[in-house]
Amino acid sequence: MRPVSIVTIGKTAFGAFADRSLLDLALDAGRKCLKEGNIAPAAVEALYLGNFAGPSFVGQSHLAPWVASGLGLSEVPATRFEAACASSGSAFFHAWTAVAAGLYDLVLVVGVEKMTSQPPARVTEILASAGDLGSEVRAGATFPAMFAMIARRYMHQFGATREHLAAVAVKNHANGALNPDAHLRKAITLEQALAAPMIADPLTRYDCSLVSDGAAAVLLSPADRAAEFTAKPIRVLGVAQASDRLALADKDDITTFPAVRAAGRKAYAMAGLGPGDIDLAELHDCFTIAELIAMEDLGFVPRGEAGPAVASGFSRLTGEKPINTSGGLKSKGHPVGATGVAQLCDLVLQLRCEAGPRQVARARTGLAQNLGGSGATGVVTILAQ
Amino acid sequence: MRPVSIVTIGKTAFGAFADRSLLDLALDAGRKCLKEGNIAPAAVEALYLGNFAGPSFVGQSHLAPWVASGLGLSEVPATRFEAACASSGSAFFHAWTAVAAGLYDLVLVVGVEKMTSQPPARVTEILASAGDLGSEVRAGATFPAMFAMIARRYMHQFGATREHLAAVAVKNHANGALNPDAHLRKAITLEQALAAPMIADPLTRYDCSLVSDGAAAVLLSPADRAAEFTAKPIRVLGVAQASDRLALADKDDITTFPAVRAAGRKAYAMAGLGPGDIDLAELHDCFTIAELIAMEDLGFVPRGEAGPAVASGFSRLTGEKPINTSGGLKSKGHPVGATGVAQLCDLVLQLRCEAGPRQVARARTGLAQNLGGSGATGVVTILAQ
Repeated sequence: MRPVSIVTIGKTAFGAFADRSLLDLALDAGRKCLKEGNIAPAAVEALYLGNFAGPSFVGQSHLAPWVASGLGLSEVPATRFEAACASSGSAFFHAWTAVAAGLYDLVLVVGVEKMTSQPPARVTEILASAGDLGSEVRAGATFPAMFAMIARRYMHQFGATREHLAAVAVKNHANGALNPDAHLRKAITLEQALAAPMIADPLTRYDCSLVSDGAAAVLLSPADRAAEFTAKPIRVLGVAQASDRLALADKDDITTFPAVRAAGRKAYAMAGLGPGDIDLAELHDCFTIAELIAMEDLGFVPRGEAGPAVASGFSRLTGEKPINTSGGLKSKGHPVGATGVAQLCDLVLQLRCEAGPRQVARARTGLAQNLGGSGATGVVTILAQ
Repeated sequence: MRPVSIVTIGKTAFGAFADRSLLDLALDAGRKCLKEGNIAPAAVEALYLGNFAGPSFVGQSHLAPWVASGLGLSEVPATRFEAACASSGSAFFHAWTAVAAGLYDLVLVVGVEKMTSQPPARVTEILASAGDLGSEVRAGATFPAMFAMIARRYMHQFGATREHLAAVAVKNHANGALNPDAHLRKAITLEQALAAPMIADPLTRYDCSLVSDGAAAVLLSPADRAAEFTAKPIRVLGVAQASDRLALADKDDITTFPAVRAAGRKAYAMAGLGPGDIDLAELHDCFTIAELIAMEDLGFVPRGEAGPAVASGFSRLTGEKPINTSGGLKSKGHPVGATGVAQLCDLVLQLRCEAGPRQVARARTGLAQNLGGSGATGVVTILAQ
């Protein structure tokens, strides 16, 4: 299989946009991505669309041909990938497969979600359908409740504190405040995070990611053609997807996600790199506890040590390993199906040294981790200059 | 890219099964597929799941890890593909890509849908979401209505008659009556078809496919490993997916499906075959008119001549080119997400000469055509002994 590069990116701002439809968002991100490389729609050979729940959020199935024809792509294979919150990470993994295989040269990957058109209770219900229907969903478990159980167990097992969780929120909000595309551009203090209303003990409002609308896109080409489209191609060194059981009750240990560990192992092996070689990362902080667990599952810190590491500044913009320089799902926003590709766009900006006030000093390699549900899907991607 | 074979198949009967869940159906088909080749779940390297609307029909998203862990597959990439009624044809296309690329050796493709748990009006509404939301769906257009418009225009343009449509139904019911797994095992007469209650003029009840529950599975391996798993491997000679606009109103001509023609062209080119080389076919007869159009789009007969061809016996079991020897969506049933893979299972049975009373005399090459919506996705696969 041949080397693959990300040649262009495009994204919308994330937010609550009463006047923007799912289609409008997807087309905006896709068009920006093509425009960045001056690429005619007719040159694109396939569309890989990540979307979690368009049929439930806006009533439209069969989204991929809808977006493809809207972009002016002609007769190309156009497919929707659904893997809960890892939908567009999964779409990217499959697009990479096809380009690496030599099936296509130019492939567009779009992630999109339009969530704010539904009332909050319905949003919660739609999100919960990514949990296990037979046990969790029917019993009324929502994702804040599930991640609260994970956080409680993690605190019990490793002595982590609410301050450790809040430190993730404070860091990500500080980063997001510097990101013009972020949903909630507001720095917060540790005191504010701790004093926020409790959503599901021990998670306060600032431990939870946002319900957002948005879209993001990347264009892939074989590495040896990348220079045709950009002066700053970003290489895909490794990418892998893995799975695990849906229900928390079926897992041996809810403080680690085997799907993320397996995807990480494979992606590191493909890249020929280890955790120490990664300069910065975008991790799936759907809840603050998820960022701590991801740091450990990916080998950035030993098990149980992520909380003190974040509190000590290890992962801030100027730290040893900056994490979620975009603001993360916490502050940038979490339009579910867009998140996986948006993480890649944000890494690409850093690796191109185009991240503006949130640019980190050393950005030669970056890792993105996209999580589905309470850990049943994990996608890990490693990019490099 | 290397040659790929289908080594084993597994399917459930199609029908209305009040006591069988989506998960139960998917696991049954998957387990039969593994059992046929005596394959341990741990040997399977990825799951490609085709499912149209599990979240709407049964309330469960994130279906692929749910099915993978139920089958005992460990940590493998597990992804759901949604392309309306072509969901599992699309899943198969992407699974083929990965095996042909050398990413995996053993890949399981499962298609599944559980439809009868919803009342008919809700089923109609869920299916309609594969049409264009902005125009068709909001205007109240259902799929019977859309295919009725297509049929009416086709009759106007080519002088086709209701008898031509009914001839498709009569043939497919005759075939389905011989298929132990078919939903409606009942031969009908031309008079019965014509006298059936009108659903959407000119389509009667016998012009419409069935609302069914069911699942189907195939296992792929590189051709050079196929003998490890079966004495009768079936080669994948060609497979392609293509797209078109969703809304009928946006198409130049509603009596032909460009996505099917494009996928057919690519699949024929990959196989190095033409329409005349195909011994038998499974075509996507969601409505009788769709089978006539598919025959023309795939070059089996010239434009406008499919109706008289079917009426003359061209496509019956003993005809020149047997079509839908399984009974088709019309009689075998149409659990939407299962259909694309089920078509492949039925072709494999014929190519293995294991189709029992519906076995055709000459079955060295077979073609399957899977359609999404009113033509916005087309997948064409060519198999051979």
